[in-house]
Amino acid sequence: MGRVTSRRKILRLDGGAASRRTDTLAAEEPLDIRVGGRTLTVTMRTPGDDFDLVAGFLVAEGVVHGKDDLVALRYCAGTDDEGRNTYNVVDAALGAHVPPLAPGLQRGVWTSSSCGICGTTGIEGLRKISRFDVADDQIRLTPEVLYGLPGELRRAQKVFDATGGLHAAGLFTPDGELVCVREDVGRHNAVDKVVGWALREGRLPLTGHILAVSGRASFELTQKALMAGIPVLTAVSAPSSLAVELADDAGVTLVGFLRGQSANVYTHTHRVVA
Amino acid sequence: MGRVTSRRKILRLDGGAASRRTDTLAAEEPLDIRVGGRTLTVTMRTPGDDFDLVAGFLVAEGVVHGKDDLVALRYCAGTDDEGRNTYNVVDAALGAHVPPLAPGLQRGVWTSSSCGICGTTGIEGLRKISRFDVADDQIRLTPEVLYGLPGELRRAQKVFDATGGLHAAGLFTPDGELVCVREDVGRHNAVDKVVGWALREGRLPLTGHILAVSGRASFELTQKALMAGIPVLTAVSAPSSLAVELADDAGVTLVGFLRGQSANVYTHTHRVVA
Repeated sequence: MGRVTSRRKILRLDGGAASRRTDTLAAEEPLDIRVGGRTLTVTMRTPGDDFDLVAGFLVAEGVVHGKDDLVALRYCAGTDDEGRNTYNVVDAALGAHVPPLAPGLQRGVWTSSSCGICGTTGIEGLRKISRFDVADDQIRLTPEVLYGLPGELRRAQKVFDATGGLHAAGLFTPDGELVCVREDVGRHNAVDKVVGWALREGRLPLTGHILAVSGRASFELTQKALMAGIPVLTAVSAPSSLAVELADDAGVTLVGFLRGQSANVYTHTHRVVA
Repeated sequence: MGRVTSRRKILRLDGGAASRRTDTLAAEEPLDIRVGGRTLTVTMRTPGDDFDLVAGFLVAEGVVHGKDDLVALRYCAGTDDEGRNTYNVVDAALGAHVPPLAPGLQRGVWTSSSCGICGTTGIEGLRKISRFDVADDQIRLTPEVLYGLPGELRRAQKVFDATGGLHAAGLFTPDGELVCVREDVGRHNAVDKVVGWALREGRLPLTGHILAVSGRASFELTQKALMAGIPVLTAVSAPSSLAVELADDAGVTLVGFLRGQSANVYTHTHRVVA
């Protein structure tokens, strides 16, 4: 496919000087995610690891929970005006034992998330039910392991160096060993790609693992960690109030502002031991 | 409402030391956006400037184009379990002359964006039709004005200082004078809030203005600029390939990596003059 990056002539301004040069851009293209031939959602993503992305998205939406729930993934025949496959449409086939999708989900994921929330203040209406319980996860980790994660993640990012434009998500062991890393223009897509990789490897739930993300921690990312059974989520920047609320409630250890030799642990701090 | 930030006890790790302290979080809550009583979408946002957010969202979706298209905005009676209004549901009333919403839009915005794109490589299927033409906008600006924008934006951010967790969008004149700034956990929401403010002030299209955002420039942000008639979009970090493609095609000057005394101008570079 070769579309993870693209190159372009730009005008570079540097103080009072201006010059023409070539710049490398992180690719962003739509991906139409289908189940049994019907579109569930369209997400803007960086091409690459598309099957992981679709698998992880279906985990986050509570559609699949294990490797056997997903029978097949394939690119559909979307073609451009010269008849080439665009590789921008992926169809998932679910196992016969998987319950049919909720009608709300089929109408569009974001629509469905509205149903329960209109009158609620909090997270009940938005929250998805996870099959995996992370509250009792016995993982323990040291501050030193935490401090090492952003550097490991950064070293593993292949495309960022070229473009400066991609988010990363990495899965780590309690000793800080990198298990899987994925990149995307969207942080939520990078997380879906990691979780989808794990599903396809038969590794769900991700008991005893750490999920590290670049940037901030939102409600949505915390929910994705929870749906995959991940007990620890770390972010380089700030978490939102709702991310902290959900993590607190569900038993996820949420770490923010993980920079250099310091960090804020927002919830379930007992898992961090000196 | 007082929910733009919230406070929480955390565990602070600093090298080998650990201490308990209080941290301030940027609030994130769902907003149910309705038109004529029916839910269009639910977005996760930082409370505050909600009417601007709804107005700007409706501009971006091509529903409204001027002040008169939007007759009223009000909070609906969403209540929490103690009967207090949650201020998380806003209903918009459109003018009688505004055409009825497209059925796809009513089913959920993200679903609707899928219709045209399955077979296309590019942006045609995702792109919304703007009533405003920016290609002929005569705005000119100097590198010095560009270099000054991130600092101005940062100085105007009220909540960021407390939380470190909010994106900002700012509207500027060609001389670099700040016209309006809005903050949100979501960059797209911050832009919607700025554009919605402008709509409600009767200022659309935003001919001759600059929109400056923190972070990266995506396809979606470029489209939002275009729908509001803004000819120049600047970002502190990288643009995506599709953002550049759309800007090129539509006549938007797209500036990225605007940091210190340097910047990359990706498209329509003729508007930047020494």
